[in-house]
Amino acid sequence: MLIGKAGEALSAICRADETTISVRGRDLCNDLMGRLSFTEFFLLHLLVREATEEQRFFLDAMLVGLAEHGMTPSVQAARMTLAAAPEALQGAVAAGVLGAGSVVLGAAENAGRLLARGVAEAAKGGGAAAAARRLAQELRDKKQPVPGFGHPLHKPEDPRAVRLLALADQRKAAGAHVAFLRALAPVVDEIWQRHLPVNINGAIAAIMLDLDFPLESLRGIPILARCAGLIGHLYEETQRPIGFLLAHHAEAAVGYDGE
Amino acid sequence: MLIGKAGEALSAICRADETTISVRGRDLCNDLMGRLSFTEFFLLHLLVREATEEQRFFLDAMLVGLAEHGMTPSVQAARMTLAAAPEALQGAVAAGVLGAGSVVLGAAENAGRLLARGVAEAAKGGGAAAAARRLAQELRDKKQPVPGFGHPLHKPEDPRAVRLLALADQRKAAGAHVAFLRALAPVVDEIWQRHLPVNINGAIAAIMLDLDFPLESLRGIPILARCAGLIGHLYEETQRPIGFLLAHHAEAAVGYDGE
Amino acid sequence: MLIGKAGEALSAICRADETTISVRGRDLCNDLMGRLSFTEFFLLHLLVREATEEQRFFLDAMLVGLAEHGMTPSVQAARMTLAAAPEALQGAVAAGVLGAGSVVLGAAENAGRLLARGVAEAAKGGGAAAAARRLAQELRDKKQPVPGFGHPLHKPEDPRAVRLLALADQRKAAGAHVAFLRALAPVVDEIWQRHLPVNINGAIAAIMLDLDFPLESLRGIPILARCAGLIGHLYEETQRPIGFLLAHHAEAAVGYDGE
Amino acid sequence: MLIGKAGEALSAICRADETTISVRGRDLCNDLMGRLSFTEFFLLHLLVREATEEQRFFLDAMLVGLAEHGMTPSVQAARMTLAAAPEALQGAVAAGVLGAGSVVLGAAENAGRLLARGVAEAAKGGGAAAAARRLAQELRDKKQPVPGFGHPLHKPEDPRAVRLLALADQRKAAGAHVAFLRALAPVVDEIWQRHLPVNINGAIAAIMLDLDFPLESLRGIPILARCAGLIGHLYEETQRPIGFLLAHHAEAAVGYDGE
Repeated sequence: MLIGKAGEALSAICRADETTISVRGRDLCNDLMGRLSFTEFFLLHLLVREATEEQRFFLDAMLVGLAEHGMTPSVQAARMTLAAAPEALQGAVAAGVLGAGSVVLGAAENAGRLLARGVAEAAKGGGAAAAARRLAQELRDKKQPVPGFGHPLHKPEDPRAVRLLALADQRKAAGAHVAFLRALAPVVDEIWQRHLPVNINGAIAAIMLDLDFPLESLRGIPILARCAGLIGHLYEETQRPIGFLLAHHAEAAVGYDGE
Repeated sequence: MLIGKAGEALSAICRADETTISVRGRDLCNDLMGRLSFTEFFLLHLLVREATEEQRFFLDAMLVGLAEHGMTPSVQAARMTLAAAPEALQGAVAAGVLGAGSVVLGAAENAGRLLARGVAEAAKGGGAAAAARRLAQELRDKKQPVPGFGHPLHKPEDPRAVRLLALADQRKAAGAHVAFLRALAPVVDEIWQRHLPVNINGAIAAIMLDLDFPLESLRGIPILARCAGLIGHLYEETQRPIGFLLAHHAEAAVGYDGE
Repeated sequence: MLIGKAGEALSAICRADETTISVRGRDLCNDLMGRLSFTEFFLLHLLVREATEEQRFFLDAMLVGLAEHGMTPSVQAARMTLAAAPEALQGAVAAGVLGAGSVVLGAAENAGRLLARGVAEAAKGGGAAAAARRLAQELRDKKQPVPGFGHPLHKPEDPRAVRLLALADQRKAAGAHVAFLRALAPVVDEIWQRHLPVNINGAIAAIMLDLDFPLESLRGIPILARCAGLIGHLYEETQRPIGFLLAHHAEAAVGYDGE
Repeated sequence: MLIGKAGEALSAICRADETTISVRGRDLCNDLMGRLSFTEFFLLHLLVREATEEQRFFLDAMLVGLAEHGMTPSVQAARMTLAAAPEALQGAVAAGVLGAGSVVLGAAENAGRLLARGVAEAAKGGGAAAAARRLAQELRDKKQPVPGFGHPLHKPEDPRAVRLLALADQRKAAGAHVAFLRALAPVVDEIWQRHLPVNINGAIAAIMLDLDFPLESLRGIPILARCAGLIGHLYEETQRPIGFLLAHHAEAAVGYDGE
């Protein structure tokens, strides 16, 4: 049974034989290992060509900014899973990765889509301010949140977004998408009638698009970052287990209101 | 219900409040973002202190060496999963991560355990050669494979292991564990009566232990590396889907021998 | 940090203490175990009240119909995962479950949504035929598929859908949603200009809604069914391993067209 | 690349073509759907032949007994995952399934292994009591727990084990493995110097082996059972979300003792 379209199966990533492995046309062992950092390798793998210095710099800063945010739900899910199944570190990492979904870590792509549309509409005439107002009002009318804005903890600003945008200015990496994000911010506050900070996903989307990352490539970045943070937490879990204690305290907070 | 021991739940990784996030006692936004590479951050997160230059160099080389190895079973599982559930990139990554188990990518920790024991026994007297022979024979008698040796594709050597060990020599990072691995290699060939190459897991374990990585921290490294490779494959899957074609060709190769 | 709304955490499913477990207000050990079948228990757990005989009958028929469909992508992902990580059966099941997404097994809920809307619009006046035409044309105009119609293998009909609908007639369980599905079928053929069979998801959605299942409860049914099928395949994998062979044949079918 | 042994890929579970699906040689649509319960289908799928009435009865009782146990760690992990990624029910189920590991739900197979060994040794002469003492002392000497004994909540007995063993007596299904379990219980209490109740896994292993289930088939049963319970909890989560509240309360209980 073939689901979907018939056709040739092709991939352009890797070739390996008994003595050689090549990735994106480069010799993995003799060229890439020892020359590229992991971040540079990831960019080469993803973007087909070697990264610019700015792409590398900002991806490192973003991965560092996203990797760790304390005892988040996905860290808890991972630590509980390792406590229950210590034979399978990969299972605990997977349980944590599964929490990188649309509500928590999936917003960068949606923010990117909004910014890309905004930049395109602004370019057609009318400018960024008018396009920002139109897009923000459209979301408000549909009672949808603005991707890239708001944070459950950080107030008045998300310090990671502030830092990334400052670095973008400092290194002259900010372009049309960062400019549109900044045009959008006061309009969002006005329409929502309260201050919604630009969050890390908004900053990431704007800077990545200004650095020529394809929109769809944004989805994977928070997952890679969190994977590193999860592994650190799971190593701590092997040394100082708290997975079952977390579950115990959470359970104690739940009331029963059934029959 | 509390499973396991009662006690205080403690963690030493991260603190976050409305305006600040600190990781391992350092300000995430103002100190780490923009200063540390992702690899350096991962090492700080895992090892509590900032990495040495050699730790950073070799972890980068290892992550690059492990991230990609073509159309592996875990890449196929991930691409099939994304084809079936394109709404959830995190699910496809998780499906791929779940294949980083004891047979395929989990051997670094087992290799490390063997090498650590070998070094300890050699130090007690008798030297590395005798300890190597004793350990290898013990595994052979139990009909167990030697962790860190052998590869289904690479012959006569695993080029990634060759490269890592050459880098370790070149940078004078090789110590007692690399020495024990090298004492073990000819003994393994002799006892198994054929050439089993040192594989990438064996080289990683030896070098990491020589660079003071805790044994249990080795388990997470291949998972992080593969996560990056999976994300690259899954981005290719969104652009040039082959997940269902892979399943179609595999299915066609299966015979039915039931009732 | 609290993501989302503050409030009391409440659940109405289960209470357990040292000597008793109650589920939906019933004594698990002394009342439910030995009295209810697994299907009946699942229905009580999900729907709060004990199932009617028709709900039980059709849920059994549907779970049986959905559990197994040969060497599907999700079965392959699961078998490859077990081959790579035999220490973690739960990981292999999870890898298979992750393929129960929107393309392959997630369509029952979408089909249910369409049918519920169709029944509601038909009831407002104009009848089922007109509503069916309007909805089908709307999907066609948006270039979207019709949930509950079409199958990559089964032609001219999906025999599982045929069987379920025959059982619904036979047992007089068919109501307004089955009637709407049947009004929709010829219209779909006409607008798509080829025969698209009602598939198992379409039949399930129609019958379940006629049996008063809440729409959102439909999403979990294929997952439970496939979980059983996966466990059977994974047991076969422990006895007669083919996971790596599947990956080998699929890999051989992939061409490389990179640099 | 082929990992592991070359050979023909064979499966004996299912055949499907355009008009027919057969499972274990039976016509899925026209024979099995509407005739078999889900439990009966699962048994046919797993055991190749149709189940006996006792196999069906006890598997239903066990699945009912295992499916739900309140706000367990795996339920929490699943609910947190759905809260973060509501687009992917399959991901939340998978996150919960990943907690069905060696500590929490994986013990049935280990208990079965112990009981099978005990029955075999008792049969060689010396009887069950002597074999029970030898096996229990051996575990104690290795400082290992006795699989199938002990529970973090239930005292003095696990009511599910009590119920299953009573049903086994009542229906005359108890054989040598149940007898050995009962010979083991007082010896365990004596050697551990406190009362360790037979838990549900111990009872399941004993009864299943007496009913001719293959040992390795025991691993999947708790996973299937929990899958049903997880789906019920996740449906409740869609109606009355508590996933983030659970994480919030657990996080509040964690102290920070880093730099």
